Amino acid sequence: MNQRLGLAGQEPVSPLYDVIIIGGGPAGLSAAIYAARKVLKTVVISEDIGGQVTWTYDVNNYLGFSQIETADLVAKFEEHVEKYGVEKLIGVGATVLELTGKIKKVTTADGKGYLAKTVIIATGKRPRPLDVPGEKELVGRGVTYCSTCDAPLFADLDVAVAGGGNSALGAVIDLMKVAKKVYTISLTPLTGDQILQDKVMGSPKVEVFTEYKIQRIVGESAVEGMEIASMKTGEVKRLDVQGVIVEIGLLPNSEMVIDTLKTNSIGEIVVDSRCHTGVSGVFACGDVTDVPFKQVIVAAGEGAKAALAAYDYIISQR
Amino acid sequence: MNQRLGLAGQEPVSPLYDVIIIGGGPAGLSAAIYAARKVLKTVVISEDIGGQVTWTYDVNNYLGFSQIETADLVAKFEEHVEKYGVEKLIGVGATVLELTGKIKKVTTADGKGYLAKTVIIATGKRPRPLDVPGEKELVGRGVTYCSTCDAPLFADLDVAVAGGGNSALGAVIDLMKVAKKVYTISLTPLTGDQILQDKVMGSPKVEVFTEYKIQRIVGESAVEGMEIASMKTGEVKRLDVQGVIVEIGLLPNSEMVIDTLKTNSIGEIVVDSRCHTGVSGVFACGDVTDVPFKQVIVAAGEGAKAALAAYDYIISQR
Repeated sequence: MNQRLGLAGQEPVSPLYDVIIIGGGPAGLSAAIYAARKVLKTVVISEDIGGQVTWTYDVNNYLGFSQIETADLVAKFEEHVEKYGVEKLIGVGATVLELTGKIKKVTTADGKGYLAKTVIIATGKRPRPLDVPGEKELVGRGVTYCSTCDAPLFADLDVAVAGGGNSALGAVIDLMKVAKKVYTISLTPLTGDQILQDKVMGSPKVEVFTEYKIQRIVGESAVEGMEIASMKTGEVKRLDVQGVIVEIGLLPNSEMVIDTLKTNSIGEIVVDSRCHTGVSGVFACGDVTDVPFKQVIVAAGEGAKAALAAYDYIISQR
Repeated sequence: MNQRLGLAGQEPVSPLYDVIIIGGGPAGLSAAIYAARKVLKTVVISEDIGGQVTWTYDVNNYLGFSQIETADLVAKFEEHVEKYGVEKLIGVGATVLELTGKIKKVTTADGKGYLAKTVIIATGKRPRPLDVPGEKELVGRGVTYCSTCDAPLFADLDVAVAGGGNSALGAVIDLMKVAKKVYTISLTPLTGDQILQDKVMGSPKVEVFTEYKIQRIVGESAVEGMEIASMKTGEVKRLDVQGVIVEIGLLPNSEMVIDTLKTNSIGEIVVDSRCHTGVSGVFACGDVTDVPFKQVIVAAGEGAKAALAAYDYIISQR
C-alpha cells in the first residue's frame, strides 16, 4: 500500500492503473468485472457501493432476479467484484479529474492522487434539492430524499411530498400506508402515470396542492411545518407537517467534468455507442450519461460496454 | 386461444398486442419483463428460450451471478418472465414481418398471423457456416458450431477447429482437454488474444494451419476427414478427423427485415440510443443490432431500453 500512497508529506504517487472506475453503482461494478476479466489493472473509487440502487427497498426488473431485496442484490454485486480481486477505495470520493493528458490523474477527497491510462466515469445521479430556506438545516431531521428508506419513520405523522411525477406519486403511495396525512405539493399539474394519480386521488389521507411552490421549511430541531404559495394567486398557506419528502428529480454527478467533457442541457455526459466521451481514454456509463432509461440492468450493460471500450483503447495504444 | 388463432381455413386473426417481441434470448426476455411491468399486452415469439446463452456452459460476467451454469441462468430468466405471465409462443419462429403500417403483422412458420402496435426484434445471431461441400450433410454427425456443447463427444478423437479468433482458440483449448489431436485451420494468421494463442501453441496435441482454406468435409454417415488447401501454394492436404468444429464468427438473424430496416455492412440492424430502427413502432435490441459488444448483460440492458421505448411510443400515439 505504501507504494501506492507515496511518502508522507510528498505528492502522492500511484502506480499506473489501466483503468480507474469512479463510482460503485451497477455501472461501475459491471465495468470492474469486465475490466478484471481483461486483466486490466483496475481500481474502483467511490463514496459508496451500490449507488442509487440502495435508495429502494427491492428490485423486480433486473433480468434473472425476479424479486430481490436491495441489500441482497448489492451484496451479490459486491461479491461478484470481490471474486476478481478488484482493488476498491470506498468511502472517499474523487474530487479532481485531470483527463486530457495521455496519463489521467484522479485526486480523491483526502488529497491522494491516482494515475491511469483510462478513466471510466460512473458517478450516477443524486436527488435534486428544493433549494429553499430550512431544507439543508433539517436534512435527516424530517427532510429526506428517499421515501423508500425513510417512510417507516413517518408512522402516524403528517408529511408532505414535494413533486408530481412518478417518483413523487410512488412516495405518496408508500406513505399513505403509514402516515396519518400526506400532502402532495407540485409546481405543475401531476405528471405521473394515470394509474398512480388514481391511487393517490382515491385516498382520503391525501391532499394535493398542484401549482403550488414550497417557500420554506420550518422547524427548530426537526421539521414542524412548511409554507407553500399558490403559483396562480400568490396566496400562502402553512402546513403543519413533521416530514418533507423531496422527489423532484435527479441531478447527474457530473460537476467534476463539466468543463472537460461534453454534457447535455441537463448536465448528463454525452457518450457514443461505445461509452466514449470524446476525450481520448475517457469513458462514461450509467445514469450520469445521456443514455436514456435509467435502470439497473441498463447501467450494468453500459458498464460492460465502457470497460470493453477502455480495453480496446488500451490495446490500440500499445 | 381460439379467439387468437381464428377460425380454421380463414386468415388467422389475432387480438391487437401492444408489443410482439421476436426472440427469446436475454434481450427479448428483458424486454418482456419491462413490457409486462408497463402493463403492455405482450407476446414473445421465438424458436427457443435462452438464445446464444445456451451455447456456452457457464456465465461468469453477468453482474450479480459470479458463476452460474447456463441452464440455471436461463431457468432464472424464464422464471422471471413467467412471474409476469407474459404470453409466449416458443418453438415456432416468425417468418414474415409486415412492419411499415401503423398496425404491424408477424406471421409465424405455421402460417398464423399476429397483430401489434409495436414490434421488438431480438433475434440475435447464429454461427456463420463454412459453406463447403459435406458441411450441411454432416451437421450433428461430427460437424458442430458449439464446442462447449459438443466437446465431450470428441473424447480421444482427432478433430479440427475452423477459425483463428478468440472463439476458435477457446474451442481449441476446450478440446485440448479431451480430444487426441486438435487441428486448427485458419484462413488468416491467428487473430485471437495472445494469451490464448500461447496456450494453443504450447500444447503438443495441437497442430495449426494458418492461411489454409477448408475445401470440403468428407464422410458417409459421419465425418471421416477434410481437405484443406494452402492459400499461398494451393497445396491440398487431407486430414483424418472425426469432428469439425466451426468457429468463424456469427451472422445476425436479420434476413426477415433486410428490405425494411436499415442494416450495416454486416447485416446488423442499425438502432439509435432508444433502440429505434427508424421505422415507426419498430425497435430492435441485442446481438442482431449494431450496438457494439455482444454480451449477455449488454443484451439484457438493451432489451429493457427497447421495451421502455416501445411504451413511450404507444403512449405518444394515444
